[in-house]
Amino acid sequence: MERLEALGRISDDARCLTRTFCSPAMRRANRLAASWMRAAGMAVREDAIGNLIGHYPAAASRRKVLLLGSHLDTVRNAGKFDGPLGVTLAIACVEHLRRNRLRLPFAIEVCGFADEEGVRYQSSYLGSRAVAGLLPDSDLRRKDARGVSMADAIRAFGGQPARLKQARFNASRLLGYVEAHIEQGPVLEEKQLALGIVTAIAGQSRYQFTFTGRAGHAGTTPMRLRRDALCAAAQFILAVEDYAARKAGLVATVGQIQASPNASNVIPGAATLTLDVRHQADAVRRAAGAQFQKLARQIADARRVKAATELVQQTPSVACSKSLSGLLERATKRHQPHIVRLPSGAGHDAAVLARITPAAMLFIRCKGGVSHHPDESVSPQDVRLAFAVLNDFLKLLTDEYGRI
Amino acid sequence: MERLEALGRISDDARCLTRTFCSPAMRRANRLAASWMRAAGMAVREDAIGNLIGHYPAAASRRKVLLLGSHLDTVRNAGKFDGPLGVTLAIACVEHLRRNRLRLPFAIEVCGFADEEGVRYQSSYLGSRAVAGLLPDSDLRRKDARGVSMADAIRAFGGQPARLKQARFNASRLLGYVEAHIEQGPVLEEKQLALGIVTAIAGQSRYQFTFTGRAGHAGTTPMRLRRDALCAAAQFILAVEDYAARKAGLVATVGQIQASPNASNVIPGAATLTLDVRHQADAVRRAAGAQFQKLARQIADARRVKAATELVQQTPSVACSKSLSGLLERATKRHQPHIVRLPSGAGHDAAVLARITPAAMLFIRCKGGVSHHPDESVSPQDVRLAFAVLNDFLKLLTDEYGRI
Repeated sequence: MERLEALGRISDDARCLTRTFCSPAMRRANRLAASWMRAAGMAVREDAIGNLIGHYPAAASRRKVLLLGSHLDTVRNAGKFDGPLGVTLAIACVEHLRRNRLRLPFAIEVCGFADEEGVRYQSSYLGSRAVAGLLPDSDLRRKDARGVSMADAIRAFGGQPARLKQARFNASRLLGYVEAHIEQGPVLEEKQLALGIVTAIAGQSRYQFTFTGRAGHAGTTPMRLRRDALCAAAQFILAVEDYAARKAGLVATVGQIQASPNASNVIPGAATLTLDVRHQADAVRRAAGAQFQKLARQIADARRVKAATELVQQTPSVACSKSLSGLLERATKRHQPHIVRLPSGAGHDAAVLARITPAAMLFIRCKGGVSHHPDESVSPQDVRLAFAVLNDFLKLLTDEYGRI
Repeated sequence: MERLEALGRISDDARCLTRTFCSPAMRRANRLAASWMRAAGMAVREDAIGNLIGHYPAAASRRKVLLLGSHLDTVRNAGKFDGPLGVTLAIACVEHLRRNRLRLPFAIEVCGFADEEGVRYQSSYLGSRAVAGLLPDSDLRRKDARGVSMADAIRAFGGQPARLKQARFNASRLLGYVEAHIEQGPVLEEKQLALGIVTAIAGQSRYQFTFTGRAGHAGTTPMRLRRDALCAAAQFILAVEDYAARKAGLVATVGQIQASPNASNVIPGAATLTLDVRHQADAVRRAAGAQFQKLARQIADARRVKAATELVQQTPSVACSKSLSGLLERATKRHQPHIVRLPSGAGHDAAVLARITPAAMLFIRCKGGVSHHPDESVSPQDVRLAFAVLNDFLKLLTDEYGRI
């Protein structure tokens, strides 16, 4: 908890916590975390893109590596836990091994990824995509808001953009990746349990819907002669809510809305809204998306307005490793009366690492489900429990190692 | 129609029709309309605030005055008919009397009001309020967007802000005020009739509603744990629409909406919307307003969000004169198979004049109910019919004059 406080004070902005990719604050955060890694007996390196990696050797000459960690960057005006909690917990686990003079039949590498939130280059997972070999060189030409290219930013940070490919992990040596992270949602809090096992990182579809009716004078157009685009949008919003509420695990959110001309005395002639749909099963998400498009058309037809749909982006679901998650569950059972299995609605480095190695995630309860906000809060008791579970997980993995 | 085209070319903006209070375009419009008034045998004056008034004398020494007219200012990017149609029709009626060498037992004064739309000083009815004695001197200190006070604007136009009180009509000499105006709504078009008799200028209540729920991550917050402010707003919008559709003559419009934080991946924590409610019966409007506030609270309670209501403004309904409207109806019956009586949902100079003299309005069908837009359109046939009805109205009023 003290380490999280210390990292939480390292910011590019004096008024709040903001720590973005390859920034001066990131430089200081890496330096501080590196000092903890070294104290825990790790050999520390920074890869070509600025990921901080601590290596704790295996017993004898065993060559397999288990990855633990999360990211060290933050959003703007962030909380202290999203990312750093997973890194500091991983360091604490290695510290515990070192204190007990334990070597495991596999090495551990603790990763502090340089960019997960994507604030500076509006392109997320830079850190984990680099180690997964999924970051094309073309991304190095992206520019930040001040016009600094990613290549220049990495160079100024001390990285080696020309050697990006060397950051790639040798997948054949990896045992897996385990990430502890705050839940960023209210499920664990509602169940009054500290920890949850992530089943999958949900797929996501992002749509834009536009309803076009007919603007008109609010005082002179009788209700029955209206073609009110905002009323159509309102009906759609409720239809989406109703459908999602009846499908287990589905979340669907209209987050943005814009009426036009947006004047108090004019009937809205157009209304545009965004729709964000997520589910751990891609088939459920896709079926929901199709249904929402159908509902929009039906509502529009009945109201003599037009509906236009655009699928802005979609990302498939990523399943967590059954074997690693099974071990996390067994470890959790020792410390908590019930097991909670839940998908992650938010994206995580684990979704990228899953492309090259089995990945699993442990969620830690956060207050009010709040994240990406200074009010982000995690209790010391829950962090202690997560630490105990990760230690037990390492023991179980050691026991099971022969079978994996 | 030619005169309306000519006035429609007099604009402060080369790209569209915009003619605001005391502007150079207004100067030219008054000059042009004054030339028509003089040609129709009227003595023309401009009052202290810039209203253009043409006086057509009564027979012998009769002292009563019938006011006819509308306003000569426009909104930004306006149509050609809203206002000027009532002024040019009034001039045409006087011209017709003059051509037939007719004097009536009352004088006619044709008013071209200098400001009804209120674009320049965001305070409507400057012209008619001046002649009704309802424009306080304090309004002269208002400033326009460039910082020019109303007093200075009037002076630059050639008016006399210090003599504002002299613009007031002597109510004891007034017989009434009759205004012809485009409907600005779709009712006459739907009924396939050219003209309608206005029963009242509807009262209006303007509200602002704010729903406050809890913002949250769109991916990690299950549907049943949400307190989505936009969903509450959507339910409210539909409840308002449903209630208004079931009350004859009631119109209720949510024209503006703002979700917060208005991000596609965040559940809206707040939603603010405007509600505009109008009806010709104040009791119906007030009951609707009370019901809408109750609905907002019920919807909010059921969703565990909060609803806050603010009554921003309310204006009572103004009834049209039964006797003058009766004469308009009798005149209309001669030219149209059915009589349409309808309230005006929009405000008009007649609502102000009604404070000092009986007032009546004749509505003229406009295409698609469109107004405040360059597409505003009226057919020459309908204008000819309105002209015939106003002529017959003057004959009927002359016949009935003894009884009024």
